Amino acid sequence: SSGNEEELQSDTNILCGFKTTTVLKDSAREKAIFLHGKLDGQEAVVILQKTPITEDTVAEMLSDGSSRLTLEMRNDIYSTYQLQPPAHLNVIKATVVCPATAKHVKKYQGQESFLVEETGEDYRSITLPYIQGQSFSLQWVFNILEKIAEAERIVYEDPDPDVGFVLLPDFKWDQKQNHDLYLIAIVHQRGLKSLRDLTAAHLPLLQNICNKGKEAILQRYGVAANKLRIYFHYQPSYYHLHVHFSTLGSEAPGCGVERAHLLSDVLQNLRSDDLYYSRRSLCFPLRADSGLLAKFKQAEQL
Amino acid sequence: SSGNEEELQSDTNILCGFKTTTVLKDSAREKAIFLHGKLDGQEAVVILQKTPITEDTVAEMLSDGSSRLTLEMRNDIYSTYQLQPPAHLNVIKATVVCPATAKHVKKYQGQESFLVEETGEDYRSITLPYIQGQSFSLQWVFNILEKIAEAERIVYEDPDPDVGFVLLPDFKWDQKQNHDLYLIAIVHQRGLKSLRDLTAAHLPLLQNICNKGKEAILQRYGVAANKLRIYFHYQPSYYHLHVHFSTLGSEAPGCGVERAHLLSDVLQNLRSDDLYYSRRSLCFPLRADSGLLAKFKQAEQL
Repeated sequence: SSGNEEELQSDTNILCGFKTTTVLKDSAREKAIFLHGKLDGQEAVVILQKTPITEDTVAEMLSDGSSRLTLEMRNDIYSTYQLQPPAHLNVIKATVVCPATAKHVKKYQGQESFLVEETGEDYRSITLPYIQGQSFSLQWVFNILEKIAEAERIVYEDPDPDVGFVLLPDFKWDQKQNHDLYLIAIVHQRGLKSLRDLTAAHLPLLQNICNKGKEAILQRYGVAANKLRIYFHYQPSYYHLHVHFSTLGSEAPGCGVERAHLLSDVLQNLRSDDLYYSRRSLCFPLRADSGLLAKFKQAEQL
Repeated sequence: SSGNEEELQSDTNILCGFKTTTVLKDSAREKAIFLHGKLDGQEAVVILQKTPITEDTVAEMLSDGSSRLTLEMRNDIYSTYQLQPPAHLNVIKATVVCPATAKHVKKYQGQESFLVEETGEDYRSITLPYIQGQSFSLQWVFNILEKIAEAERIVYEDPDPDVGFVLLPDFKWDQKQNHDLYLIAIVHQRGLKSLRDLTAAHLPLLQNICNKGKEAILQRYGVAANKLRIYFHYQPSYYHLHVHFSTLGSEAPGCGVERAHLLSDVLQNLRSDDLYYSRRSLCFPLRADSGLLAKFKQAEQL
């Protein structure tokens, strides 16, 4: 290891010179901190994140003679300690972006969100024109549907142009274990932007995604339907209809009640009211820097 | 510090002798691990959890000469490293329960959950008899409503017997900062167990909680309504109607789409269908060891 020493030493110097100007975000739950500052005179973002505790390192940590334990509190059968394991068993992951632009800084900033309650009328007068004005490219979605890209990632396909869809793993899932399984079903039908466009006419499509998506996930991964949370996002991150399949155990971002809509609820609501999703007020969070939030403010709907 | 050395040394020996038999739970996101094993011949649960990274320790970590940095990956402006800070800047919180009973072990076990889709009929034939058979005591709730307990914690009260409620901080909120604010509104009206009991007759009660709860939180904490997620749980953890108020920024457990129901949706649904919540199928997760899950299995509804 002495051969590495020099390299380590020289690397050490890199972050030694980092001067923090602001803490962009600070996640006590995830044991991470996001910093903006200067590194050798250049703008930089430094992210530090503690690493998961694994079973193998625990045994070493506890048995290593250089580990230190300090009693904090003792009450009946309960006690708490501070454990100081040897440094090499307790590394921190550091990510450096340098030179960082204002865009990078903004990306890592903890952004405030505001809940918007959008009526059906707000959708038509504010949200829809905003979406249309953005002309978000959906080319990457069409590439998937036409097998121009990501064809090898497809887990299941029903090629029917009306009720068909393609099922593939979400990029957030590393596919290494099934307990945090996360897939996306993208409909073949074009022109359905979101929940807002759904009517009773789409019940066969939705029921088909529900049935065949569950079946494909059971076949391929052995994960039963009663372990799955199946839902839409509103607002979605892209305006081509898609359905999320994630396991109950996973804490996939965006499965909170303020953004997610269970497919089973959507099915029931459309069965009882054809226009449920075009007439209802829908709540969703928007980040402080969102263009859509600015439109709602302009329209004095906030 | 040499005076402490002996105490530390003797404490070290305590966990040195811990032999893990099973990993009860392992949270990569929260950097925690829950272990069951033997400590000096007794059953024990040991919980290890990495500590949050604070701004002050970061400066020390980066500047300390004994910190080591190892390059993992470099690509354009992005690079990742392993940082080995000095042991004293990187402690782990250890909690020991010893001797631990089977109940403790079960409590810390990562429990599988299963999604149940409960029809209105399932509610009446399976869930309702189960709730009634459990005879959960609601005395602690009545103590709050009658100011026998926790009176000093009440943030706001509308004493009206029909539409009134008491608003107080949830125990999960430490009240030290407002960004993770979490309060509960408990209705004065008795006999409303959950969402399932609500009809259009309860609209004045629900609208009152919505309006006055938002107003009280704005007055007391300066937190605006568009920062609040206002919702019911189904299944709730106790069967006396209550409403959760938590900030969008907080990741309060139980705000996932599979358990939470936004008050604004409940209001709309009851306005358009008096019997919405008595007739609809509602999805919710149940833990593998739940008595209610066993009832659903018996009834072959799973």
